[in-house]
Amino acid sequence: MRMYDIIEKKRDKRELTKEEIEFAVNGYSNGEIPDYQMSALLMAIYLNGLTNLELVYLTFAMRDSANILDLSSLKKEGKYIVDKHSTGGVGDKVTLIVLPIVASLGVDVCKMSGKGLGFTGGTADKLESIIGYDINIDLNRAINQVKDIGVCLMSQSSDIAIADKKIYALRDTTATVESIDLIASSIMSKKLASGVDKILLDVTVGSGAFMKNVDDAKKLAKTMVNIGKLAKVETKAVITSMSEPLGHSVGNAVEIKEVISFLLSDEETLLSDYNKDLKDVVFEIAAQMMKMAGSGDDIEENKNKIFESIVSKKAYHKFIELIQAQDGKTYEVYMDWVGENLEMPVLKDKVKYMKEIHAQDDGFVVSINSKKIGEALVCLGGGRLRKDEDIDYAVGFEFSKKVGDKVKKGDTILTVLYNDKDKFEDAFSYIEEAIYIDNIEEGLANGLKQKPHVIDIIY
Amino acid sequence: MRMYDIIEKKRDKRELTKEEIEFAVNGYSNGEIPDYQMSALLMAIYLNGLTNLELVYLTFAMRDSANILDLSSLKKEGKYIVDKHSTGGVGDKVTLIVLPIVASLGVDVCKMSGKGLGFTGGTADKLESIIGYDINIDLNRAINQVKDIGVCLMSQSSDIAIADKKIYALRDTTATVESIDLIASSIMSKKLASGVDKILLDVTVGSGAFMKNVDDAKKLAKTMVNIGKLAKVETKAVITSMSEPLGHSVGNAVEIKEVISFLLSDEETLLSDYNKDLKDVVFEIAAQMMKMAGSGDDIEENKNKIFESIVSKKAYHKFIELIQAQDGKTYEVYMDWVGENLEMPVLKDKVKYMKEIHAQDDGFVVSINSKKIGEALVCLGGGRLRKDEDIDYAVGFEFSKKVGDKVKKGDTILTVLYNDKDKFEDAFSYIEEAIYIDNIEEGLANGLKQKPHVIDIIY
Repeated sequence: MRMYDIIEKKRDKRELTKEEIEFAVNGYSNGEIPDYQMSALLMAIYLNGLTNLELVYLTFAMRDSANILDLSSLKKEGKYIVDKHSTGGVGDKVTLIVLPIVASLGVDVCKMSGKGLGFTGGTADKLESIIGYDINIDLNRAINQVKDIGVCLMSQSSDIAIADKKIYALRDTTATVESIDLIASSIMSKKLASGVDKILLDVTVGSGAFMKNVDDAKKLAKTMVNIGKLAKVETKAVITSMSEPLGHSVGNAVEIKEVISFLLSDEETLLSDYNKDLKDVVFEIAAQMMKMAGSGDDIEENKNKIFESIVSKKAYHKFIELIQAQDGKTYEVYMDWVGENLEMPVLKDKVKYMKEIHAQDDGFVVSINSKKIGEALVCLGGGRLRKDEDIDYAVGFEFSKKVGDKVKKGDTILTVLYNDKDKFEDAFSYIEEAIYIDNIEEGLANGLKQKPHVIDIIY
Repeated sequence: MRMYDIIEKKRDKRELTKEEIEFAVNGYSNGEIPDYQMSALLMAIYLNGLTNLELVYLTFAMRDSANILDLSSLKKEGKYIVDKHSTGGVGDKVTLIVLPIVASLGVDVCKMSGKGLGFTGGTADKLESIIGYDINIDLNRAINQVKDIGVCLMSQSSDIAIADKKIYALRDTTATVESIDLIASSIMSKKLASGVDKILLDVTVGSGAFMKNVDDAKKLAKTMVNIGKLAKVETKAVITSMSEPLGHSVGNAVEIKEVISFLLSDEETLLSDYNKDLKDVVFEIAAQMMKMAGSGDDIEENKNKIFESIVSKKAYHKFIELIQAQDGKTYEVYMDWVGENLEMPVLKDKVKYMKEIHAQDDGFVVSINSKKIGEALVCLGGGRLRKDEDIDYAVGFEFSKKVGDKVKKGDTILTVLYNDKDKFEDAFSYIEEAIYIDNIEEGLANGLKQKPHVIDIIY
């Protein structure tokens, strides 16, 4: 078998066999096939697509390129280990909120998260803004921790799906990232190698996501659900909006603060329209996870239980338990707005400067481009362009207004937290471009505000 | 400027600028852009094509990647230096016949030829089957030789169009060779860098050519003629058939023998149907070259002069002059069928074995697949699969029958000249597959025989 013939076949839109795909993936993975042949094949795949069979063979070949994690010791009668994965976004702190909630309701989760790259943030970075939090624990410790407290949030093991890692790095330099087929097989190869029973996908759509429109997001979701089916691993996808940043904060430490305040919400706040986008997504994802895990077939009932878990602070205590189990520092403090003493994580949140950005005119917030906000965060040093870059955990944005909100000239739209005045200047142009205020009709503004954040569920 | 953005742009079918193409070609040429990025770009070009502007910018960037040869000292009032280039074939000895003819008629030619690769032969290899012939002379000596005897046939200079050389090597391993746009710019970059005034292209079509059908051949021809126009170098393309091997011989030394016998043809042979395919192509190419060189505007009149040059043996003597000028060995011999003493080149033509291949049934020769014959020659050792391989100059095929010829069971179709019995076995399966004899109607057979070999002229 020759790599040349495999490239030629895909170039000519003929279907590759299982053996040919394994030859390419394994050969590339072990260094026998050079970068330049793999990149030609990837571009041919990007432009000509993959058939359903090819897609599955590619995913399986990458899954099998290294170990598949063994989570069997976590197995309980009638229950399933569910993994939750988001295709990424700006201000996406859903994992950090959902995991403590479902763990407090008896759903065990052993989740691996990655670092952020480019304009999308990473859960691993957000956790590392807690002083002491050890993201790099080994699988043994992780399994014991799940047995002990029901939840673990660790960095992605470097020895699963190594072919995917090598291929992804090559795609990243050859403009072959944004292919639905390649994204789907990359995500699914890692998820299938992580040894879970079921997979719940949060497929984001909008300016701050890989998928810019709902059709593409649905296509990606269907592709991944289909791969899951063929791998005999139940897979469900929730399609959620990422056109404006999710919630009120974007950054690392600031997002942990929003997680804390979300998990400490009282009944009134939970029932209000405040943070509706984040609430909608959190409740849907958590309720679906419970169902898949075998902890409640009725989604509405699950949502009631989630509501209870939050207002009773069970979820918040589980969050603190998780942080402490992974060596994150906490301290006890009397919280005015909660009215009791609570453990709080110690954050890398010191900034030198804060600047409020004001509305220049009266009107309504028509859009907040989340990609540009993500890029502004990179400018401030809160995100990275290369994998090995250090980041500034403290910088970020706190939004006072969201899409659909009425503003008067001079109102604060957001507050920028930063440490370097030059970097602020770079970020400011992105922020300016990101926010669009116009004098639209109130009905239209309400329409924008009420747009559903959970767009569809694919299974 | 970033190579990533250039790949992305071409991937998305947006037109690249002159600066972007130069950035890619020069960066790759000097090693700043890695193979894997260039191969991704080449696959995107293969699948999405190039616009006319991109094509010209790419050709010019490759042309300018090294020296452009200076042939200005060969310039004569009212005359032009014309280069002749064939897109390659099996049994294609046209250059070896045409050059002595036109040189004997006062048209100066300084031509560079390449070695064969795969199933297509190379003029350089055929010349090297003459003992002593030095293909690797330098440009100075070549120019002096043209001034002296009007003709030179040397190997392609290694320091022209070096970007094309590097890109071609990469295409060769990444299944991006068979792109009309990339073939056209590769050929034209070399021709434009060779410093000639005008270019005559022999675009071959059929199983033994790059272009398998007339439409593709016309497209390639038009693409190259168009590039020539934009480079202000008059370019003309003759489209010729390469469905069966050209002439009666395929190999290296055997083709030199056919050149000799062609150039020693008498009036009767020239006027007969014998070797019609080769004669048609030779007369058309030579007549067109004369016209472009400024040595005769009337094609029919040129063909008469060519006829005279052959029957008077002027062309043959020029051929011998060329060989001697480049240190090729010759010896004087009395030629029965010519009836006089003539200088003959000394060839590397010793073979251990000769085997006649016979017809299994009565009928007509319907087709001789020239690609398979070319592959059979590679099996015998007469061609190479890798650039650095040595070849056996003596092996080859002599055809007794051509397409359209009537055969009786037991008639010899061709004779195989070889040195290794195992290699013959390998070659035999290709030969068997190549030749198709069937009991078709005589009218149909005559139709096949009379099919024009010069299909079209594009300018």
